[in-house]
Amino acid sequence: MDTDPPLQLRVFDLNCWAIRYLSKVRQERIGMIGDTLSQEGFDLALLQEVWSERDYCELKQKLTACYPYSHYFKSGVIGSGFCVFSRYPILDTFLYQYSLNGYPYMLQHGDWFCGKAVGLLIIKICGIIFHVYVTHLLAEYCRDKDAYLPHRVVQAWELAQFIQHTSKGADVVLLGGDLNMHPGDMGIRLLRGWTGLRDSFADADRFEGCEDGYTLVPANCFTVNKELQPFPLGIRIDYILYKGLSRFVVKCDSLVTTTGTAPGKSIPYSDHEAVIATLSVRRGEEAKGSSGSNVGPELVDVVNEARTEVRARLHAAECQRDSNGRMASLALLLLLLQAAMGLSSLVGWDTPQPFPKFSSSLLSLLATVVLLLSMGLYIFHTIEVRMLQGTEEQMRLALQDKLSSM
Amino acid sequence: MDTDPPLQLRVFDLNCWAIRYLSKVRQERIGMIGDTLSQEGFDLALLQEVWSERDYCELKQKLTACYPYSHYFKSGVIGSGFCVFSRYPILDTFLYQYSLNGYPYMLQHGDWFCGKAVGLLIIKICGIIFHVYVTHLLAEYCRDKDAYLPHRVVQAWELAQFIQHTSKGADVVLLGGDLNMHPGDMGIRLLRGWTGLRDSFADADRFEGCEDGYTLVPANCFTVNKELQPFPLGIRIDYILYKGLSRFVVKCDSLVTTTGTAPGKSIPYSDHEAVIATLSVRRGEEAKGSSGSNVGPELVDVVNEARTEVRARLHAAECQRDSNGRMASLALLLLLLQAAMGLSSLVGWDTPQPFPKFSSSLLSLLATVVLLLSMGLYIFHTIEVRMLQGTEEQMRLALQDKLSSM
Repeated sequence: MDTDPPLQLRVFDLNCWAIRYLSKVRQERIGMIGDTLSQEGFDLALLQEVWSERDYCELKQKLTACYPYSHYFKSGVIGSGFCVFSRYPILDTFLYQYSLNGYPYMLQHGDWFCGKAVGLLIIKICGIIFHVYVTHLLAEYCRDKDAYLPHRVVQAWELAQFIQHTSKGADVVLLGGDLNMHPGDMGIRLLRGWTGLRDSFADADRFEGCEDGYTLVPANCFTVNKELQPFPLGIRIDYILYKGLSRFVVKCDSLVTTTGTAPGKSIPYSDHEAVIATLSVRRGEEAKGSSGSNVGPELVDVVNEARTEVRARLHAAECQRDSNGRMASLALLLLLLQAAMGLSSLVGWDTPQPFPKFSSSLLSLLATVVLLLSMGLYIFHTIEVRMLQGTEEQMRLALQDKLSSM
Repeated sequence: MDTDPPLQLRVFDLNCWAIRYLSKVRQERIGMIGDTLSQEGFDLALLQEVWSERDYCELKQKLTACYPYSHYFKSGVIGSGFCVFSRYPILDTFLYQYSLNGYPYMLQHGDWFCGKAVGLLIIKICGIIFHVYVTHLLAEYCRDKDAYLPHRVVQAWELAQFIQHTSKGADVVLLGGDLNMHPGDMGIRLLRGWTGLRDSFADADRFEGCEDGYTLVPANCFTVNKELQPFPLGIRIDYILYKGLSRFVVKCDSLVTTTGTAPGKSIPYSDHEAVIATLSVRRGEEAKGSSGSNVGPELVDVVNEARTEVRARLHAAECQRDSNGRMASLALLLLLLQAAMGLSSLVGWDTPQPFPKFSSSLLSLLATVVLLLSMGLYIFHTIEVRMLQGTEEQMRLALQDKLSSM
């Protein structure tokens, strides 16, 4: 075992809730986040929901001296919302957009427009290669009747696969972000089981902050208490996960969360609590089982559970695709009929018009709108069906391989 | 150096041109392809443009005995079109969809609907880990005025980055597919320069087939000669590329292409020629520079050339986004005006109607269609702008790192 002193690393993770025109006291909070990052001098800050590039630029300007390296990931209509500030050089970046991300017609949630993704940054610190992943999975708006669960499970699977396939050259893997899943949820068990990532909250030598590491708490003045109703004390959905590879051992010395307000201030940084982990990395013997997952009955069970969830949504998506297809066909038929009637009256055939001209053209308007919308939805659900089928097949294949190599 | 005999591998690659209802004698050709794969017993067959899953299932049924392992990649509305047949177990698969893939309004080409992607398969052959990539990049419809060039360059860059980030655990990297680029094109230089992949045609000890390895030739009865006009002898756009990593050396013993007709038949397999490479893989000393690219002035030049192309398209996409935004606003304004007029006449205000009711409702119909279409295009171009910006930034960062590590 190496006798070098371990490398200590302080990582800050926060869902900043910085939506222009919608999030409360956004500018003041962005200013506060910038001040704290600047004063505390973390090694890495992983931020989500910085939706506006202007906010990123403001932060960047303030933090250039302390964090000379930064990156903003661009994707989707609104963007990914991720940015990272680092004291160490960022060597390369790569972005993977999740194939499924909610429904375009759920305008009130808007997830589909966000281009949810996972960003990879390769950072070299004291000769150690860190693969740092930052992500934000689909929100959970209603736990009892969670329409987004299958998509979130697909995202968790794609995240796990993306990490497994892109981290072979890493010494240390770090994942920070708002996973929108409780610690025992299927998606978290799938992600952790498949990748072998460790939970900094569960493994920390010292912990300070909200009870059970909650990152959405009623003490936060921006929290909508109704959303926390089934969990009056709070929930934990923001994580810093890690693992050491190739003879590197990572340990979580301490984990801290904010507790409703930013330290020394009257308001919080965000509607989420910040998570700050102090990790130590040292060269050691090959950590057993740390390079990947351990295939046990739990992992087999959770992959099968995920497959069941995906299959159930697949069936529903097929029904929605077909019903939109039928609706589009009907609207097209109606338009064709009206065009034929219009044409016949133009060429002077003496056919009686069944509707007055005004109603007839209103009907055309309606049919056109229905046609365009249902065609769009038909395309959307066709893609959804394919991606669900592909994911289910990939899960089956990958599990089969894991089992055969046991 | 190891004295084990080298592993010999025969790889078949073909763009099958199997579009239901559109491609000529499709069923007969799929049958022929199945027969040949079955008789020849290749180790790996990488097929593109098998758009219909039924065709894949037909092939799978025929080939189960000879190729017990196969995979069909699902993506997009129509699918990716990729399938792979293998004599050796496929351990895992992963799909990366390119962020840009043509324009939704170019219905005559339909590329946008195809979900172009790169598929990764991890295959273990005699203890050697192969990362096999199969892809199909955006077509080139008009070389002189190629509207798709910037998107194809982005795809080539994403392909190169995907290979680099996911191949660290591989012993051998293999890429097969229709890249829709001539050997000297910017995208190919970028891909090969960045990944260090070798061209089986250029490196083959023996070559047999069409002049200069062309895979689109006038002798093929399905070739539209007009499309080949600037290149009357043919073009080479289908490739098998490879490299050895981690003490494995790969050599191309021979490369064969079909020459307009399938051997012993009166018609070809497809409108593309098939490419068949015989590779030998042996353990050896660490191949210098084979694990990645060599940063030379050529690579710097080609990355900068690609950045220029991306920036030029970025400017055009910004203009298109803005003009669609203006169009949508105008249509919305018109609709609001009409609604206000309709409302005022309903509540009985004595305002004179400027248009007869029929024309007015026709105008509403038009405004609604324009609003929906221009909103859709606004969203599309907004995503395009973000992805182009992100790619340009990523190219700059990655190049900077390569240069600093020289």
